[in-house]
Amino acid sequence: MTTDPLFGRWTARIDQHLHGILPDPDTAPQGLHQAMRYAVLGNGKRMRPLLVHASGALFGADPARLDAPASAVELIHAYSLVHDDLPAMDDDALRRGRPTTHVAFDEATAILAGDALQALAFALLAQAPMPPALAVECLRVLAGAAGAAGMCGGQALDIDATGRRQALPDLERMHALKTGALIHAAIRMGALCGGAGADDLARLDGFAGALGLAFQVRDDILDIEASSEQLGKTAGKDAAQDKSTFPALLGLEGAKARLEALAIDMHHALAPFGPRAEALSALADLAIRRSH
Amino acid sequence: MTTDPLFGRWTARIDQHLHGILPDPDTAPQGLHQAMRYAVLGNGKRMRPLLVHASGALFGADPARLDAPASAVELIHAYSLVHDDLPAMDDDALRRGRPTTHVAFDEATAILAGDALQALAFALLAQAPMPPALAVECLRVLAGAAGAAGMCGGQALDIDATGRRQALPDLERMHALKTGALIHAAIRMGALCGGAGADDLARLDGFAGALGLAFQVRDDILDIEASSEQLGKTAGKDAAQDKSTFPALLGLEGAKARLEALAIDMHHALAPFGPRAEALSALADLAIRRSH
Repeated sequence: MTTDPLFGRWTARIDQHLHGILPDPDTAPQGLHQAMRYAVLGNGKRMRPLLVHASGALFGADPARLDAPASAVELIHAYSLVHDDLPAMDDDALRRGRPTTHVAFDEATAILAGDALQALAFALLAQAPMPPALAVECLRVLAGAAGAAGMCGGQALDIDATGRRQALPDLERMHALKTGALIHAAIRMGALCGGAGADDLARLDGFAGALGLAFQVRDDILDIEASSEQLGKTAGKDAAQDKSTFPALLGLEGAKARLEALAIDMHHALAPFGPRAEALSALADLAIRRSH
Repeated sequence: MTTDPLFGRWTARIDQHLHGILPDPDTAPQGLHQAMRYAVLGNGKRMRPLLVHASGALFGADPARLDAPASAVELIHAYSLVHDDLPAMDDDALRRGRPTTHVAFDEATAILAGDALQALAFALLAQAPMPPALAVECLRVLAGAAGAAGMCGGQALDIDATGRRQALPDLERMHALKTGALIHAAIRMGALCGGAGADDLARLDGFAGALGLAFQVRDDILDIEASSEQLGKTAGKDAAQDKSTFPALLGLEGAKARLEALAIDMHHALAPFGPRAEALSALADLAIRRSH
């Protein structure tokens, strides 16, 4: 991702902002603060905050206005990983190449750190340097995407489906909530901060839907083809947990064909924006070609 | 609480609003939706939403404007109980006279239900029928109170202190965050919705600080004097878990004297408002005299 100088600059900006808004690791309660920083400041891909910046750039948004939404969506993503990795959930010990938060700290601290990260995401948006009407719109988008009708709902559908074969529409709906909702929120918040109109927002919804799905199809393929070392998390878990995946339902080649079809959909959705959508388009390519 | 017809009407209004905003138990993911409703729609005292209404009434706020902040603070409170009761946290099986959420459902569902309830609280405020600037202020107050500098931070301090004796100032600081922050947010959101000025807000801060502490002192006394049946949760847990409490540090009579002193503080803080503060004053009395 850092091969593109623009993404390198944005990633540095995102990491600096996250660094500044997370609580001081040396003041009490230290364990909580350190766990929050640990969960967020690892070597994440920053895909969602990059989408906020790329989508905002499409409409000429001031990058300073994008800092809060970009960090907020990453905080929600990071907290969801902390909770998903808990023993009562996916029970995973490795994430982003390091011990998961409940392993590095303890379970109680991991639960609380996740909870506090979620609150921080919304506090950040409520304090953001932007007009209140825009802040409220971003808050509505992000809170909706994070909750029962979004990410949490998708995770619940995923748990409900573990151990049985899902039909393709059910699998797609689950991922649209679990992964897609937050990707959609990132793109929409960026566009809102740039003052995008209803037509452009609708076009981006189409792009976001395809990107969310493509992201997950690629994840499923990587789970089969890549090593744990490449992924920075446990590989081969889907098959081990008997989860429905795109390769399981479509075959590995079928899943790859689906990914290419989604790439074309994304291309079409962005075409009307012309070269202004270059950054979004490059992020879509990265999501599809990524090796971890 | 229902002896006072005003509180009875408010409680009915609060319960009706909560009922309406929680997701449908019959649509997927049913387990998540049912757990969210179970955690919120039990026989809670509704102290925090009542404080929103009482504080709003002091400044003549339209009750319709208070519905969202009242429900939002109760959703945060309810989610925190679900997570606090988890095996990795306080490991409690009984709450509000019923099995705790992770016992009635399962741990994964309880974690997710708590997460989704927190998101719903902020989504609710972001969609509330009020001017955006007021919604953003309420969101800032509630998100700040819920996070690392508030409720989650207090819970982390509590865990850190379990098994060792805390000094009185540390105990008070822990409770000011763990319980006090949300009580303060409830009172402040109500006042903001009624258009309270800076002087009045400062007076209410003093009241809220005393009430938060009084609430906890009473809790500690009840943990010694009341039965599990009366409390609807396990009695005697503080001593069993070797937690610092006000009776442990001050003696039972000392704790009761502290409670009376806080009652006088609250009375003084509300005195400038005259009879308009009657509902807030009655809630303070209830918090101090309550038997569960």
